[in-house]
Amino acid sequence: MTKRLYNAKILTMVPGEEIFDGEIQIDGNKITYVGKTPSDNAGAKFDEEIDCEGNVLLPGFKNAHTHSGMTAFRSLADDLNLQDWLYNEIFPREAKMTPDDIYWLTQLAYLEYLTSGITACGDMYLTPESILEASVDFGMRCQIVSGLNKFGPTLEVLEQRYNELNGKNSLVGFLMGVHAEYTCEKELLEKVSELIHKYKAPLYTHMSETKTEHDECIQRYGMTPMALFDSLGLWDFGGGIYHGVWCDEADMDIMKKRGLKIVTNPGSNSKLASGIAPVSAYLEKGIEVAIGTDGPSSNNCLDFFREMFLVTALAKIKGNDPKAVDAMEVLKMACVNGAHAMELYDNDCLAKGKLADIIMIDLYQPNMRPILNISKNIVYSGSKTNIKMTMIDGKVLYKNGQFNDTIDVDEIYSKCEEITKRLK
Amino acid sequence: MTKRLYNAKILTMVPGEEIFDGEIQIDGNKITYVGKTPSDNAGAKFDEEIDCEGNVLLPGFKNAHTHSGMTAFRSLADDLNLQDWLYNEIFPREAKMTPDDIYWLTQLAYLEYLTSGITACGDMYLTPESILEASVDFGMRCQIVSGLNKFGPTLEVLEQRYNELNGKNSLVGFLMGVHAEYTCEKELLEKVSELIHKYKAPLYTHMSETKTEHDECIQRYGMTPMALFDSLGLWDFGGGIYHGVWCDEADMDIMKKRGLKIVTNPGSNSKLASGIAPVSAYLEKGIEVAIGTDGPSSNNCLDFFREMFLVTALAKIKGNDPKAVDAMEVLKMACVNGAHAMELYDNDCLAKGKLADIIMIDLYQPNMRPILNISKNIVYSGSKTNIKMTMIDGKVLYKNGQFNDTIDVDEIYSKCEEITKRLK
Repeated sequence: MTKRLYNAKILTMVPGEEIFDGEIQIDGNKITYVGKTPSDNAGAKFDEEIDCEGNVLLPGFKNAHTHSGMTAFRSLADDLNLQDWLYNEIFPREAKMTPDDIYWLTQLAYLEYLTSGITACGDMYLTPESILEASVDFGMRCQIVSGLNKFGPTLEVLEQRYNELNGKNSLVGFLMGVHAEYTCEKELLEKVSELIHKYKAPLYTHMSETKTEHDECIQRYGMTPMALFDSLGLWDFGGGIYHGVWCDEADMDIMKKRGLKIVTNPGSNSKLASGIAPVSAYLEKGIEVAIGTDGPSSNNCLDFFREMFLVTALAKIKGNDPKAVDAMEVLKMACVNGAHAMELYDNDCLAKGKLADIIMIDLYQPNMRPILNISKNIVYSGSKTNIKMTMIDGKVLYKNGQFNDTIDVDEIYSKCEEITKRLK
Repeated sequence: MTKRLYNAKILTMVPGEEIFDGEIQIDGNKITYVGKTPSDNAGAKFDEEIDCEGNVLLPGFKNAHTHSGMTAFRSLADDLNLQDWLYNEIFPREAKMTPDDIYWLTQLAYLEYLTSGITACGDMYLTPESILEASVDFGMRCQIVSGLNKFGPTLEVLEQRYNELNGKNSLVGFLMGVHAEYTCEKELLEKVSELIHKYKAPLYTHMSETKTEHDECIQRYGMTPMALFDSLGLWDFGGGIYHGVWCDEADMDIMKKRGLKIVTNPGSNSKLASGIAPVSAYLEKGIEVAIGTDGPSSNNCLDFFREMFLVTALAKIKGNDPKAVDAMEVLKMACVNGAHAMELYDNDCLAKGKLADIIMIDLYQPNMRPILNISKNIVYSGSKTNIKMTMIDGKVLYKNGQFNDTIDVDEIYSKCEEITKRLK
């Protein structure tokens, strides 16, 4: 199946490349040409040709940290303290969830990802097998991250999943992860360290999301969570952290040394009053910053335009500096760094040989006019209404507000309403 | 022209009323029935009947402070210091703008208002006559607020506009306003005070937006801007302030005593690093808080969903309290208080006799599922994609992503691109 997307403005996100008018050619799930029109093979036949009508093509947004299946709890328990929310509302319901529930709830999140231009997600949730199934059936690119903690699963199950789920389908991978320092005993972390050394695997985890959690680790071990993990060799093969609201400069030095990424979650961090992450400081240190929505229970939406604006707006507020984290830096986080923070390197920009994970931004909406600066328009003014097309792995899954025929939206909605009622 | 909107969930925003299933009937620009189905006049004929398919009807959002015509400068000069932005980029271009330019640029903003569910705006910009014309031709409800300052216009012109523009068309009003303390000499403020006493008129102004401006007033007069205005009798007939980021408790006492409203502008305040307004403190003091996008040059978008989320998210961050400013409080600001902060009292809720300024929220988008709590879904998870219909003064101006035939979108876009090029 070959495709040609022509009459487009193209923002490749390849370092140093400016936006230009041209076309993209695709064969199967790969990009075969990105450049001016006419191309070298002008006049060649394609199975499908899409007139982009002067709209913008750019690499899809990468939602580098989320818990997709938590759609069940959207608007269930907002405006609560974190502890009340987690222990009284979420945990009792999660205990009742089945793999099949998570299959459907995950797809509900995926629908929203498409409307928001998200073409890949880093998903830490309960039943990796049914998340894999949901991703493959739906067509979403997903890096599943294990959320191992003292309540489960066993290290044997983690290792088995690592071996079995990786390579099962090209859309899905499985990364080693632990939920957080505060939900793992030190002995467990030591065993995880042995496992990642066995596989030379990078590790991902929630870290320093709240001040309480960060400070309690220091009381417990005399070290920050970042330093503790480093002392246990958990960063020996890289990886990254989610949230990182309370990391200090010494933590950032470790991150720089170990090549760790940070995934910032500004919607969730502000809604739960966790604080504002020091994004400008991470950037100054040369650490790759990616963006995640976190789960729909804490955020509550899965809207990358909102997250992108929050990244820069909160950095400006925190630094008392309107020049902090400009629009192009934010787009790089969303499109490029997000891929790297999921250990994906073949969908981070638009170039020959890269995967065809592409979105089209509608410039014929009033919030994109006048067209003075496209990257600033997208980051400061963009919204889901600007997502004219979302393509993953060469397939158009969302276009002009409609989902692909392969996706049964009504079934997803009705299954999720059923599940939500049962979990009450 | 009579209309019936049936098969709806209705959130009237009348104090104490819960959401219920029912219908709304309209005659001309007024609501004649809001209630359950069947109504008392079941079986009556209507010129138009709209099946709401179970979606939500609520009063339109009120954008209580904006500078619509600044669409010309969207994405022109972001990530700059306020002074650089204003003096080097904005003022030289504004000097070249004609009333006709503002006619078109204002309508570009109005298009975006429709996509965002905004049914009325409080618009402070250069040429009130052409703003009135734009509002009437477009069908937008607009309260124009004079931005008088030491550079113009004269008090005579202000008084003339107050008398001539008010009552010219039922969609448009004209309110007394001054740009800000720091752009008006004391003598000018004294003369404005005489004028508002002559007409017993409420007054509106930018106030305490930045710390610098707030502190400089204290240095100049030994008083905060709020206290200065009070000492000059400028609040004797009420009114309100825009921004109010740096108001202290004594300022709030004055506001409470004088019945002043505050319009918060969180998108603009964060993007320009002005600070986080003390919204929780205003609420505790019993002051009505409304929401504004501010102009598209500083924000840059005109998206009420983004503003609503920012109001609560920033209050939660500022107060280190996830319970701060809950969703229903935010909806009240957006729908009800916003009307009052423009001196409008007949479009603040859905009830018999009120104006038919109504929006429909699409629940068949993934971000609205599951349907556990509709007000929380709207405020925490909503986006422009959820605006299924925007009705102003009984007329449907936007529905299913399409603008009404009376609006020539292509002409607005092309005029605005032309104007923007000329102003460069």
